[in-house]
Amino acid sequence: MLINCVAYEDGTRLNELPVEEISDYLARPGCFVWVALRDATTAELDVMQEEFALHELAVEDARKGEQRPKVEDYGDSIYVVMHLVEPDPEEGYRLGEVNVFVGPNYVLSVRNRSQQDFLGVRARCEREPELLRHGSGFVLYALMDAVVDRYFPVVDRLESELESIEDRIFDRGAARASIERLYELKRRVMLLKHVVAPLMEVAGKLASTRGPVVCEGNREYFRDVYDHLLRINASVDTIRETIATAIQVNLSMVAIEDSEVSKRLAAWAGIFAIATAFAGIWGMNFARMPELQWEYGYPAALALIVTTCLILYRRFKRAGWL
Amino acid sequence: MLINCVAYEDGTRLNELPVEEISDYLARPGCFVWVALRDATTAELDVMQEEFALHELAVEDARKGEQRPKVEDYGDSIYVVMHLVEPDPEEGYRLGEVNVFVGPNYVLSVRNRSQQDFLGVRARCEREPELLRHGSGFVLYALMDAVVDRYFPVVDRLESELESIEDRIFDRGAARASIERLYELKRRVMLLKHVVAPLMEVAGKLASTRGPVVCEGNREYFRDVYDHLLRINASVDTIRETIATAIQVNLSMVAIEDSEVSKRLAAWAGIFAIATAFAGIWGMNFARMPELQWEYGYPAALALIVTTCLILYRRFKRAGWL
Amino acid sequence: MLINCVAYEDGTRLNELPVEEISDYLARPGCFVWVALRDATTAELDVMQEEFALHELAVEDARKGEQRPKVEDYGDSIYVVMHLVEPDPEEGYRLGEVNVFVGPNYVLSVRNRSQQDFLGVRARCEREPELLRHGSGFVLYALMDAVVDRYFPVVDRLESELESIEDRIFDRGAARASIERLYELKRRVMLLKHVVAPLMEVAGKLASTRGPVVCEGNREYFRDVYDHLLRINASVDTIRETIATAIQVNLSMVAIEDSEVSKRLAAWAGIFAIATAFAGIWGMNFARMPELQWEYGYPAALALIVTTCLILYRRFKRAGWL
Amino acid sequence: MLINCVAYEDGTRLNELPVEEISDYLARPGCFVWVALRDATTAELDVMQEEFALHELAVEDARKGEQRPKVEDYGDSIYVVMHLVEPDPEEGYRLGEVNVFVGPNYVLSVRNRSQQDFLGVRARCEREPELLRHGSGFVLYALMDAVVDRYFPVVDRLESELESIEDRIFDRGAARASIERLYELKRRVMLLKHVVAPLMEVAGKLASTRGPVVCEGNREYFRDVYDHLLRINASVDTIRETIATAIQVNLSMVAIEDSEVSKRLAAWAGIFAIATAFAGIWGMNFARMPELQWEYGYPAALALIVTTCLILYRRFKRAGWL
Amino acid sequence: MLINCVAYEDGTRLNELPVEEISDYLARPGCFVWVALRDATTAELDVMQEEFALHELAVEDARKGEQRPKVEDYGDSIYVVMHLVEPDPEEGYRLGEVNVFVGPNYVLSVRNRSQQDFLGVRARCEREPELLRHGSGFVLYALMDAVVDRYFPVVDRLESELESIEDRIFDRGAARASIERLYELKRRVMLLKHVVAPLMEVAGKLASTRGPVVCEGNREYFRDVYDHLLRINASVDTIRETIATAIQVNLSMVAIEDSEVSKRLAAWAGIFAIATAFAGIWGMNFARMPELQWEYGYPAALALIVTTCLILYRRFKRAGWL
Repeated sequence: MLINCVAYEDGTRLNELPVEEISDYLARPGCFVWVALRDATTAELDVMQEEFALHELAVEDARKGEQRPKVEDYGDSIYVVMHLVEPDPEEGYRLGEVNVFVGPNYVLSVRNRSQQDFLGVRARCEREPELLRHGSGFVLYALMDAVVDRYFPVVDRLESELESIEDRIFDRGAARASIERLYELKRRVMLLKHVVAPLMEVAGKLASTRGPVVCEGNREYFRDVYDHLLRINASVDTIRETIATAIQVNLSMVAIEDSEVSKRLAAWAGIFAIATAFAGIWGMNFARMPELQWEYGYPAALALIVTTCLILYRRFKRAGWL
Repeated sequence: MLINCVAYEDGTRLNELPVEEISDYLARPGCFVWVALRDATTAELDVMQEEFALHELAVEDARKGEQRPKVEDYGDSIYVVMHLVEPDPEEGYRLGEVNVFVGPNYVLSVRNRSQQDFLGVRARCEREPELLRHGSGFVLYALMDAVVDRYFPVVDRLESELESIEDRIFDRGAARASIERLYELKRRVMLLKHVVAPLMEVAGKLASTRGPVVCEGNREYFRDVYDHLLRINASVDTIRETIATAIQVNLSMVAIEDSEVSKRLAAWAGIFAIATAFAGIWGMNFARMPELQWEYGYPAALALIVTTCLILYRRFKRAGWL
Repeated sequence: MLINCVAYEDGTRLNELPVEEISDYLARPGCFVWVALRDATTAELDVMQEEFALHELAVEDARKGEQRPKVEDYGDSIYVVMHLVEPDPEEGYRLGEVNVFVGPNYVLSVRNRSQQDFLGVRARCEREPELLRHGSGFVLYALMDAVVDRYFPVVDRLESELESIEDRIFDRGAARASIERLYELKRRVMLLKHVVAPLMEVAGKLASTRGPVVCEGNREYFRDVYDHLLRINASVDTIRETIATAIQVNLSMVAIEDSEVSKRLAAWAGIFAIATAFAGIWGMNFARMPELQWEYGYPAALALIVTTCLILYRRFKRAGWL
Repeated sequence: MLINCVAYEDGTRLNELPVEEISDYLARPGCFVWVALRDATTAELDVMQEEFALHELAVEDARKGEQRPKVEDYGDSIYVVMHLVEPDPEEGYRLGEVNVFVGPNYVLSVRNRSQQDFLGVRARCEREPELLRHGSGFVLYALMDAVVDRYFPVVDRLESELESIEDRIFDRGAARASIERLYELKRRVMLLKHVVAPLMEVAGKLASTRGPVVCEGNREYFRDVYDHLLRINASVDTIRETIATAIQVNLSMVAIEDSEVSKRLAAWAGIFAIATAFAGIWGMNFARMPELQWEYGYPAALALIVTTCLILYRRFKRAGWL
Repeated sequence: MLINCVAYEDGTRLNELPVEEISDYLARPGCFVWVALRDATTAELDVMQEEFALHELAVEDARKGEQRPKVEDYGDSIYVVMHLVEPDPEEGYRLGEVNVFVGPNYVLSVRNRSQQDFLGVRARCEREPELLRHGSGFVLYALMDAVVDRYFPVVDRLESELESIEDRIFDRGAARASIERLYELKRRVMLLKHVVAPLMEVAGKLASTRGPVVCEGNREYFRDVYDHLLRINASVDTIRETIATAIQVNLSMVAIEDSEVSKRLAAWAGIFAIATAFAGIWGMNFARMPELQWEYGYPAALALIVTTCLILYRRFKRAGWL
């Protein structure tokens, strides 16, 4: 689905143009074409391939989708794949994809399986014509910056989820819930890792002085994106490591709780066992058991049993078993 | 066993040719020979070595089999080893091997211990003669692409196996089955890892601008294969890490379940111990135990015992022990 | 908030100057301007950007804060971000930030969210004019050295906290407290790691012979800072590894204690069970149980019970179960 | 102990020569000397050092033994240390050592603490004179190839030992034996790792185009050895990782078994506790317990007890506790 | 404290010289000065700085101590820090430090907090004047070699401590002692790691062809030291990995023992529970319990109880629970 197809001259918006005229505008010096597609059909991609003279392999990748974030350098043009992360009530996350083809005087972005548009990026670029004069590299930067900016809230949500788990991890009886949540969190973090880490590599390549030609003059902007990704990546790694530790701690907590239950069980079992043993002895049927005939034998026996139990109880209490 | 032995000129199929004429065709300019063997005997390999003037070490490797995926660069020709993964009802997987010798104007592929043929690759190349004009490097790419494409369903199956384990990992009583399946899965993943990781290295070398000469002009195709392998490799690593976490979680789940059983055991033991202790006391044979003579002593005693047990029961219930 | 804005000539302090005259002084040959801001407002940063002709992206980073420690090289000037770590009663640590812009003849430092000032650095530099003659690179070194020096007590505190945990880790009943403290310590160590490791990278770049131009002639000083950071980093890694081991040991200790409790429970349960079984047997109501009629049947029975229990007790004692 | 001391000319064996004449033969153009020693004494090594003009440090290393596998490059000559692994009934393995000094026209091998000779290597080289014409580099390759070939059965034995452990790892009651065997296996694997990994490095250096001069012209042979070592190393790493997983699984299995025992214990304890409680109640001595006087009170009571126990038994059975 | 201050000419000892004349001797061509200090005071270091014209940062490092092992290259001179490890009854180890300043014709060594002297190194060098002719680089090598040689017994002691733990790790009841010893051992190994690893880096730099100028001509000696450190480092890594495995094994052993105790507890509990249940039943007070009136009811009952218990006992015995 075509969203925008606009030509610019010296940073100023000329007009929306029909798709078939793209190649004509590309031939005009000083002219810059910026096209945005969404969930493009094969037919639309074929037209674009012809108009922009895109590399066959790149178009095939865009058609098939499910690529890793990457940059392909075809000399005068590059092809960049980025992932979008959108919250999804069921799966936790849904991954979208942005394919960007960047040539000396054009940018073609194809967005797949994602609700997030980039109209804000275009609006910002049109508001500040001096930015558009930096060329197609700057537009790529602006798109990339927008994508990366949307990772921050995702990381924040992961971090607060982790914190909410941490708040309960030392609570008694929370082990089962914690471990399930940690496992689920781990899954999400790994998904995000696979979104962020390769894109960081991409940004690094674009920022490098030996990077693609179309990014020339915008290296510092890409370095800025690279720094953002480095930060996100560090956060993701911290979450991962913390989850690993939390799982271990969870196991320790279960063991500790179990140990406490064992102690309590042992303590009460001991107390009742002693009472039962005493009662059993005076329940024996020997003919001559003098204390059974005593006036106050029974209360004395009860008192003895209760006292013994109380002494045991206090000792266990002191030892921290009860 | 010889499968095909065909000469091409300008991308068009000339004819099947007898093995002994290979060297003659190789000497003709513009001519290209593509031979496919399967489970080649030593004799067959010797003939091929002579006809194609293959390097002794490469032929020895092909003869012995059991190589790691690798590429050997002999200047004007290269030798590539790839692994094929086929499902096997007993072992989980069976590994096959494809040895490819690539020279300036020939490709010789030797497939060992595998049911998967590459007829489709040849058919595709013959259908599109302009592709064959890219030379032997392109044929190597086409073979490699076919091999790598067959890894995807293998990874998919591993992923769905992992998901099916994950679905049950938090179920009570599933621990033993889960751990056995995780262990088995781990074994398969490691096998796949050893198939994929070295081949990724191979693809990287072929895609690099300092890679072998015969791949010149097809670098972008090999980069595409490399990207696919990178994706597979990332999936494999994710599975591995998830398995590791799942094993830890499994242990936690066992510990949690054990802890729950301990609590329940402790609770019931406590309830019955108190009943038994009471009964034991009134079973003592003291001469003067006034309550034994009461009209409603017995029902009162029963009521006391039951009430105490019920109170305990409710407290344990509330504490989550029962 | 402006803290200092001073011009120097040949290492000697000239005078405090109004912010607007900075650019004039910068134009005077042999003149050096050193400005310190604290929790700078956007307006203040805008003035600084104009006066020092700072790079837009760097100023934006300084404005937003929350950067990773890093160095940005803009040819003749650089931008360095460092973190300050301050103890905080609630969170454990609070992170501050120092942004330093260094040009050929100026240094601008912006300190955010931190109580720690750098007046001592300026005082030391003013006391020893020959140091200031090393130029802006030396001032950057002095600031960095001051920042890094403040990491040492933080590491020391982490180490003594770890030691105090270690002192109790083998104590009975300390498992719950230990694991909570270890987890909290881990969190702090990882925070420190993210402060130290990227700064080490920064110091490494500044010390390298291919590092920024403004550090020329002060390479050895930055190598010294680098060595300090290497040392801190090694300590942090040691603490991390020790925590990981300690968590494992903690789990082992819980398991060992639990095992000891199980043994004790088993031992006492056995002793009482035997007493109860004996008593139960003589409590049976068979008509003909000759020993029940014996003169000393009861004491003999008691003696038998006690003796059996004592024998058991001694055997358990010897086996280390009690 | 001298084993062989032979001179060759153009790949053909000339004759056994006395040790003192080595230097004379070395001076003759086209002549090649190959000497093999075993458990050489200091005196023998001194003679060799003089005759071959060996580097002092290399000779000292050969004398002391206990070196890591390594290659030392002294310009026109190199010194290589390799390890031999021999099964030993007591320790599991015994390490031998081969020191090889290689110059432009000589090879001196010194084998220490090993029963494995290299007569086969010499025989093969003498059978195929065209091989010996490749010079001393080829002889080094032949020795190295022989050493590495002997690692394969060692790895195979480790793998089958691991498989035999794996076969029993999920068996009940095998935990103690498994963990002891895994630990022992781990020890052996690590020993092998320290034999293989550094030698791989050595082979890599010899195969590299910037490797020692004496290997010039035999690079592809060393690359072949390198590939073998890569394969062995990958196997070793797989074994290591599998052992690590197996140890974790072992722990899980112990925990699972323990949990099963706990459940069974809980179930039987519950069943008997209820029987005992019932019996205790009817064993009380209240004056008015009407059911005691019933005609069929006793059988009814027994029936009630047995029925209750059976119901409990069936419920536990269904829940998988029994 | 000054230990030696000697001048050499052409490798021969000239005479002890007063500290103030050092700079005079340094100016004499062909003259070489070797000074050794111990726990040097600030004053002594100041004199040395002046006489040898040492770099300020290096002297400051030597003064402060607590450096990581490192080498600082100041063009014509270098500064090396090495650590000494000495057994200490209380702490396990005590770390000493050797600071060595090496210039074209001098060596100054400052030893801190260590009982180990280097008189043997000097004696050896003086005995073999041709060694001293290699210059200051050789003396540095000799010192370094002496330091590294002293690491070997330390590693040996760690290894035998580990072996003594391993000997008992599978013993019953040794878990607590083992885990404490493993933890302590781990601490020591990590300390040694931080001594060895950075020094290995130092030796690597000195051995490299692009290393400091003063080591020119002695590269092979430093490579020898490097190899020794590589070996020590590998041993340390092996110990570390073994400790990690041993800790896991320890946990497994505790779990296994605990499981065995649980089984035994369950078995005995079952046996006694059945005896008590039987006794309880015949202890009931029903009016009509015919077997109670039987002539041999009591012995029959006893026989039944004992038989049941024995049957149970044998079954548990066979199942390995007892």
